[in-house]
Order: sequence, then structure tokens, then C-alpha cells
Amino acid sequence: MDGDRITTLSTPVMVVDVDVVKRNAERMRGHWTKLGVTLRPHMKTHKTLECGDIMTGGSRSCIVVSTLAEAGFYADHGYDDILYAYSVPFDKVERCALLAERLSLFQVLLDHRDALEQLRKRPLTDGRVWHVWLKLDCDNGRAGVLHSEPEALRLAQAISESEGVELTGVYAHCGNTYGCRGAEQIHAVARETTTLVLQFMEKLKAVGISCKSSIGSTPSCSQPISDMAKLSEVHPGNYVFFDVQQSVIGSCGLEDVAVRVLSRVIGHSPHRNQLLLDCGWSALSLDGAGKLPTGYAVIEGHPDLRLLSMTQEHGRVEPLSGQLDYSRYPLGTLLTIIPYHACATAMMHSVYYVHSGGRLVGMWTPTRGW
Amino acid sequence: MDGDRITTLSTPVMVVDVDVVKRNAERMRGHWTKLGVTLRPHMKTHKTLECGDIMTGGSRSCIVVSTLAEAGFYADHGYDDILYAYSVPFDKVERCALLAERLSLFQVLLDHRDALEQLRKRPLTDGRVWHVWLKLDCDNGRAGVLHSEPEALRLAQAISESEGVELTGVYAHCGNTYGCRGAEQIHAVARETTTLVLQFMEKLKAVGISCKSSIGSTPSCSQPISDMAKLSEVHPGNYVFFDVQQSVIGSCGLEDVAVRVLSRVIGHSPHRNQLLLDCGWSALSLDGAGKLPTGYAVIEGHPDLRLLSMTQEHGRVEPLSGQLDYSRYPLGTLLTIIPYHACATAMMHSVYYVHSGGRLVGMWTPTRGW
Repeated sequence: MDGDRITTLSTPVMVVDVDVVKRNAERMRGHWTKLGVTLRPHMKTHKTLECGDIMTGGSRSCIVVSTLAEAGFYADHGYDDILYAYSVPFDKVERCALLAERLSLFQVLLDHRDALEQLRKRPLTDGRVWHVWLKLDCDNGRAGVLHSEPEALRLAQAISESEGVELTGVYAHCGNTYGCRGAEQIHAVARETTTLVLQFMEKLKAVGISCKSSIGSTPSCSQPISDMAKLSEVHPGNYVFFDVQQSVIGSCGLEDVAVRVLSRVIGHSPHRNQLLLDCGWSALSLDGAGKLPTGYAVIEGHPDLRLLSMTQEHGRVEPLSGQLDYSRYPLGTLLTIIPYHACATAMMHSVYYVHSGGRLVGMWTPTRGW
Repeated sequence: MDGDRITTLSTPVMVVDVDVVKRNAERMRGHWTKLGVTLRPHMKTHKTLECGDIMTGGSRSCIVVSTLAEAGFYADHGYDDILYAYSVPFDKVERCALLAERLSLFQVLLDHRDALEQLRKRPLTDGRVWHVWLKLDCDNGRAGVLHSEPEALRLAQAISESEGVELTGVYAHCGNTYGCRGAEQIHAVARETTTLVLQFMEKLKAVGISCKSSIGSTPSCSQPISDMAKLSEVHPGNYVFFDVQQSVIGSCGLEDVAVRVLSRVIGHSPHRNQLLLDCGWSALSLDGAGKLPTGYAVIEGHPDLRLLSMTQEHGRVEPLSGQLDYSRYPLGTLLTIIPYHACATAMMHSVYYVHSGGRLVGMWTPTRGW
């Protein structure tokens, strides 16, 4: 199959442009090398070995994951220095412990005293310690203890004072950049989160604690501000694929989006002025809620079309205005869909077809589960 | 693991109550045995062998599928009389032909003259003919040629007159029942679709064509009307699992829903009056758009909670009113989520854990892809 044109693939199918992936990875590495900050790429968007290798420059080291299944998958393939950046779930402490005892560096994250207690109840063998990041909510609206709560500092102290546990760092995710439109707004959120994290680091220093700091989100890391040079690490992930959402936010241009869903016209519905595609939510996801001017996605090369709605295996397409000219879209016509949210679209596929310049060069198989 | 309580499972996880599945399957069989209509169950919701066996009463015959991957999967496991109820995609004609030449009965569907032409260009071997259903849109808003268009009758005639092709039946899907609330509205849509299909059958008869007729959708088939006895077949699918959506429509009660996503509390966000769950859209899907009074799902036994929003791996839960009492939901608390749309939730899981009375009895592995 290698060397075949992607247009010969059976649809729907997710394709990845490996050249764009590499360019995105290099650009992100460039930003952080220049600022002297460690880039710890997040694997959650693609969950594949091959893309992890591109993001880590082949080092197979220093990554973030969102599920313990990912952690195990990467560990099984020789990755190390893995941060499981998810409030350590009580039903998974034992599996975390086994990874921590097996890798040279496996790091966990928490935002609650009860989670610390769970770790303390499961001391690691061979004199190892739990490497723990404290998740801080810097008005980002996701997980974490609120930066301004006295409990944040007290919890950091409790971690650093616990036997068998080490406070490795403070971790924030500026998920509120997802509401931004344009670089200026992204910079404002990045600046606010960075400032709050650095202020918290000062508070820690005042009580004699020093550790790392990390912030993430593809928007803030794609449009870095100079203050971020004071952080130890950053942890973006989506940037390797990008998507329409990121282009709307201002993290990238549409030309930086590495993924597409290829789809074919399988129906004409002149009584509704619609085309039917073989791409439903089972191939694209419902992410974005259809709120783009072009609906649930962008149909490449057809700015006049809107992906109006989807059922499990069908997409309904209508013109932005006027009557569809069906002669332009005979049954079988290939349409290329740029996903709204690459993480969500990738989750719908058991395999990604990888190409360079439209010619297949391989297949990537993501890990799944938790 | 068999015999273990499902509450010991690592979360998030999708569990299926096999007793409810069997009851749902039996009830549906009961309706149609009584009406003397063939039940051709749809596999798209679960895509597993085990559930197919329950729905077909072990006959491994007479099913509908939504993807060719499902068709191949069931054929590989000894199923026959498979209807691929999807406007035959031009890139899959050869794979369809191979299945048609291999099974004793493989049926396809179309709604356009160009699709018929594709079948004619690939005659089947050994004197076999293409068994073709004509998809009719009876104001249902999905695929199909509009029942009132002269082209509908002309296309039926073209199919029945084509060499190597047989018009097997007329197929409609009353997907517009999904907008119904209550049995009365469901009956109205079912009656309208049934009437339109039967009127079309009369038109066919007038030109000397006789073939089968089939309508589907879980709402209409769960609340059948007497006129449906005049149809040859029905093809519902979701009924074996049901979900919150079906209970809102009026197809079932919540007690008939066979699937749950088990989830655990992994965070407290008192500054936002929220709990965080380990169930994001990667475990539940975004289907339903959060429009239920309780948001994206129903949290069993907690009618006072709303699943407000989800990210990839987190669910945010808030009280319908007032302040959360966090002492009721310590970290690690198991919450049981009744999905809005079982088809969409099932798609997010590579394995379903099956139980009877809360004790594990097995695992079902769905097929994926197209």
C-alpha cells in the first residue's frame, strides 16, 4: 500500500500529513529551545508511538500522558520520564506504583490531600519515592486546587514533607486559552497563568520549597510570551496535529493542520438541498457542536459548503447559500474534511493513514482505554 | 474476573446488564411475532457477536449492519442473510460483491441511479444476482429518494428491470421519530411512514412489481401500530441497549436501559461548586449536546446532579441548585452514568464489561472501522 495515493483509500478514513507533523514538532521545539525551557510534549492527541518519536525527537523521554493506558503503552515501548498528568485516581494507585518501580522516572499529579494519603499508603520499593506534581488551577477552570486558596500552599508543604514522596513540580493547564481569539488574547491568558504560577513558586520559596513549574495548552505554547522562559517546562500536545479550532483560536493557520478525514459523497437529497457524505460522527466526532460558519468542520477547497449535521454514519452537507449544483458533486466524489478538534476525531479511528505529499508512507495505531 | 462485582472495575468503563439486554430483545421479538412481521435487528449500536446472538435468538441470520466492516465481521462468524443498509458506496462495490458471492444472502441498498449502474458494472459470478433494497425517504430527513418524487418509482422499475439485479425491497428509516415525545407522537410518525411505504408498495404493484417492505427506528418499533403488520420486516437496533434519549422520546423507561458508564470522583472544585469525574467525552461522547435538564447524561441515584461539560478525560458535575456537599462525594466515589445515546457511548469503548446483577459474566469486543 505504501506509495499509493491517499485518494485510493476506502472512506471514511483519517489521514495524517507526516511532513506537517514534523514541521509542527520542529517549530514547537524551536520556541522552547530558544527560551531555554524543557518541552514535555503531551501524547493525548494521537497516542501513537510514531508520533511520540517525532515529538520527542527520537529520545523517547520526557512526555506527558492523559491516561494510564498511554503511560503503560509508552513504557512498554522504551519510553521513560513519563508524567501521568491526571489527578491520580484511587483505583489506579497500584498500577501507578508498578510503573514508578519499573521506570527510571514516572511522575504523578494530584490536587487533593486524600490523594496524597493514597500514595503514602503505598510506599514504593527499593528506596524509590513518588514524584508528585501539584496541579494548580490558575483560574483555568479545569482540575487543580485554586492558586489563591491557602490550601494550595499547605498541600504543597504536605507533599514535600511526606515520607516517600517528593514535590517535583507545580503544574497548570491554561485551558481557558480555548476561549481566545487571536494572539493578543492568548498572550493575556498565558501571561496571567505564568504570573500566577511564578507567584506561587515565590510563595513556595518563602517556605523553603523549590521545585519545577510547568504550564501547558497548545495555544499558549504556540504563541509563547517571554515570561514563560522563567518556567521549567511546558506541556502542549495538540500542536502536532492542530485543527480548525486551533486556527480559530489563533494558535496556527489552517495550512498547519496535519489531519484530514477523507470522505465520499454517497447521496443527493435535492428535496432538502443537501449532499450526504459517508462521514458521520463515528468518523469525525460531534466536537464543536457545529458552531463554525461551516458547521462541524471545514470542507477543504469548498468554503461554500457547510457540514450541517451528522448521524452515526452520515454527514449532511448544504450550501452556505443558494441551491446546490449536484453536477459538481456526483456520487463517489471525494471530499476532504479538516476536523474541528483533532483529539476528538483521532479518538474515533483505530488506525491513522500517514502520507507525504499525498502518497501513503505508513499507518499509525493508537493505544486506547484507560 | 468473572463473578467479580462491577464496582471493582477500573474506571471509566462501559458495563452492560445482560439480563436487561435479553429482556429488551425478547420484548421486541414478542411485538413482531405477534404482528407476524420479520424482525431484522440492526447491529450498529453494539457491533458485537454476543449481542447479535441475543438479538437473533441464536439463529445468526437476518440482520442489518451500518458498515461493511460489520458485514464482514458477522459473515466471518457464521452469520448470513445480512443487509448492508447503507447507500452502497462506490469505493466498496467490489467488497460488497465478494460478500454477495460468499454468503447465501447478502443484500445492499441504494437510492440513486448511479449506484445501480455501479452494481451493473460488477455482475456477480455463479448466476447470482444483486439483492437490492430501494431506500425511500418518507419525510424522514435521512438518506433515500423522496417517496413523492416520480424518480422513486422509476428507480424501482430500473432496479427490477436490470439484468443481474433484483429489487428485494423498499426500506425506510423513520429517523424523524427522534424528535417525538411520548407514544402518541411516535405512533403518528410510525403511521405516516408506514402509510407512505404501503402507498409506494401499491404504486409498485400497479406497475407489476412486488417486493418486501421494511421500516425501522427503535421508537417506532418499540411502540408499534397495527398497520405495521402489513410490512414485511422491521429493522430497529438501539432497543437492545436503549438510553436516556430513548426514554425521553418514549420508547422505554429508564429501567430498560442496559448500559452504564461507571465513573469515579477524582476532583473537588469548591471554587466552582463542581465535582470532577474521570469520565470525559472519550468515555461518553458529546452526543446530546448537554441539553438534558441533567446535562450530558443522567447520574443514577443522583437526580440533583448535572453533568455540565466534559473535556477529553474529565467530566464536570454541578448540583442542579445550591451548594455541593462534598462530604457526600469523597474522592474515589463511584458514580453510575446512564448515557444519553448508547450508540455513541459504545463507539468510545474497545470492550464492554457484561454483568448479571452487578457480577461480571464476560466481556464483549465490538468490531470497528468501515
